[in-house]
Amino acid sequence: MKELSNAKKRVLKNKTEFRNFPMVPRVVYGRGSFDQLADILLPKRKNSDAPFIFLVDDFFQDKTLVTRIPWLFNDQIIFVSANEEPKTEQVDALVHKIRQDFDEQPSGVVGIGGGSLLDLAKAVAVMLGNQGRAENFQGWDLVGRPSLYHVGVPTISGTGAEVSRTAVLSGPQKKLGINSDYTTFDQVVLDPDFLGSVPKQQWFYTGMDCFIHCVESLQGTYLNAFSQSYGEKAFDLCQDVFLGDLPKKDAEEKLMMASWHGGMSIAYSQVGVAHAMSYGLSHVLGIKHGLGNCLVFQHLNAFYPDGVTLFKQMLKKHLIVLPTGICVQLSDDQLDEMVHIALAMDPLWENALGPKWKERVKVEELKEIYLKI
Amino acid sequence: MKELSNAKKRVLKNKTEFRNFPMVPRVVYGRGSFDQLADILLPKRKNSDAPFIFLVDDFFQDKTLVTRIPWLFNDQIIFVSANEEPKTEQVDALVHKIRQDFDEQPSGVVGIGGGSLLDLAKAVAVMLGNQGRAENFQGWDLVGRPSLYHVGVPTISGTGAEVSRTAVLSGPQKKLGINSDYTTFDQVVLDPDFLGSVPKQQWFYTGMDCFIHCVESLQGTYLNAFSQSYGEKAFDLCQDVFLGDLPKKDAEEKLMMASWHGGMSIAYSQVGVAHAMSYGLSHVLGIKHGLGNCLVFQHLNAFYPDGVTLFKQMLKKHLIVLPTGICVQLSDDQLDEMVHIALAMDPLWENALGPKWKERVKVEELKEIYLKI
Repeated sequence: MKELSNAKKRVLKNKTEFRNFPMVPRVVYGRGSFDQLADILLPKRKNSDAPFIFLVDDFFQDKTLVTRIPWLFNDQIIFVSANEEPKTEQVDALVHKIRQDFDEQPSGVVGIGGGSLLDLAKAVAVMLGNQGRAENFQGWDLVGRPSLYHVGVPTISGTGAEVSRTAVLSGPQKKLGINSDYTTFDQVVLDPDFLGSVPKQQWFYTGMDCFIHCVESLQGTYLNAFSQSYGEKAFDLCQDVFLGDLPKKDAEEKLMMASWHGGMSIAYSQVGVAHAMSYGLSHVLGIKHGLGNCLVFQHLNAFYPDGVTLFKQMLKKHLIVLPTGICVQLSDDQLDEMVHIALAMDPLWENALGPKWKERVKVEELKEIYLKI
Repeated sequence: MKELSNAKKRVLKNKTEFRNFPMVPRVVYGRGSFDQLADILLPKRKNSDAPFIFLVDDFFQDKTLVTRIPWLFNDQIIFVSANEEPKTEQVDALVHKIRQDFDEQPSGVVGIGGGSLLDLAKAVAVMLGNQGRAENFQGWDLVGRPSLYHVGVPTISGTGAEVSRTAVLSGPQKKLGINSDYTTFDQVVLDPDFLGSVPKQQWFYTGMDCFIHCVESLQGTYLNAFSQSYGEKAFDLCQDVFLGDLPKKDAEEKLMMASWHGGMSIAYSQVGVAHAMSYGLSHVLGIKHGLGNCLVFQHLNAFYPDGVTLFKQMLKKHLIVLPTGICVQLSDDQLDEMVHIALAMDPLWENALGPKWKERVKVEELKEIYLKI
């Protein structure tokens, strides 16, 4: 009986069935709720020598937000560029710096920014609680010891990084998340006021990350009623935001919730073809995740016909013209590497196409798609 | 600045704005996921003398479920009738018994059943971590010390007790929840297989608890985009379940998720007139919460016209005939007490009708509604 149950668990490991999913245990929502952060952090301060580390998108370096960060004692604010995807070596460097700067283990880490900053904050919190290099933790459930207390404050919505149990990093070998129960934030602050300042293209690309992963999860083979209900709500909200005519503030709030529910929908599902191929694009060319998803997804009629139709309506409505000619000059080696990275994402392909996915995906087909980009 | 912020918080206390909401930190979903419970509890066992206490609806006393409860060492299974609403003195008696039976503080409490059992388990876990009588904790944020680790396994869906931060109890003075951050379950197991065995009337009344609180929260004045998104999804799922033509298993799974999202929608909202009046009905006549809500809601056209129309379609489709003549023989004193209990639920009325609700609700109007029941 026990044997059967363990055997079953092994089979189901990648399929996420029966996963004991870690939800963010604390969330505060509301316009202006960022100012609650001081009160939230206070009881988590171990002592005046154990600082909070604020990792902040350098977009905010000269903005008034900085004056609202509740730093005390020897807290540290580190501005980080989100122009590139977060990297394992960047995580290692941050952890090294923090360990050098302070004798004591910090009280916690606060990430303020979009998906890149949130994933960085999650990864730094994990690595401050563990020994070794971040690249060794890329994968599923490789984290042995608890992370430091960590808080996420999304300032751009769409990635779902605020609720997910992964911190996606580009490493020397692969672009892959630190997927673990210790990765999930201990606290999230959802303040839609931040969304007012997001540049339009970034707003669109990041929002499309949510839309696309809803399409992938709702059409995936892993889906169950739990994830479906979250995915459907996120999908509906994305349509309201990107195809409806909502007042600006309503659209901001609904996009923030779309991202939240979209992230939750991954609890018992997975993303699919667009994300797998976008990972290849990011790893080889350093293209940001949101844009990468859009670049791939536009050519995925064969996999997601209805989703692609809606996506093109959204592009048109918001006058977004995607860049072209990105892959034409790639060497054969680079193209091979991209396909290799994409095809290494087994769970994503299995979710998209079922257990026999390897029979259904041709290397040439993927190369053709990449070359259209 | 600090003063202003505190003053603002006082004003907002009942309105839940900026509440740092405690989400259930762990959830497992899936048919058969109940069998994960052994693995979930194992690392939470403090030692072999610190038992788990299983509070189980006595409906299961002679069912095979009992053989699947993962009890070990000196764990205790206590069967509890859910025929009556849970009471503060019942909580006190359970806590007293557990303290007498064991020298050590238990490892935790597991509630298996519908809303009554879940609320009992939450209240027992709170009181095992605190001193005094349960009635002294009825209210908002009166719990000073952490509760014991506690797990909820809903076997009927609709109340939202599996995600809420309250444990509703009838006390000597009032029917009111222990609303606190310590009340929320540490772990929930969502296994839709349980829903196959729920008697039809109970299925309907409990499902309507969800439907009705969605109507109340979506139409309420406290609502924000966070709660709206959950409430809308729960509302849609309820319509699918009670007015659609879903296969039985799909309907079970969707109702389980409706209850979950419906409970979450209360994070930044409140229930309203039906729940306030239903509390009066329960307290004076001991009528179960789900049925009480239905009895009241059918007569609330003046407050929730669209919701009441849908509700009547649901009654008709499922051939449910609500009992009548329940309040006709009440004494004036009893009727006064009912109205008094209902009107004491300030936040519910304020949510329903706004800050000037006292001008808009007449005692006579409530009596008239009660007398129709």
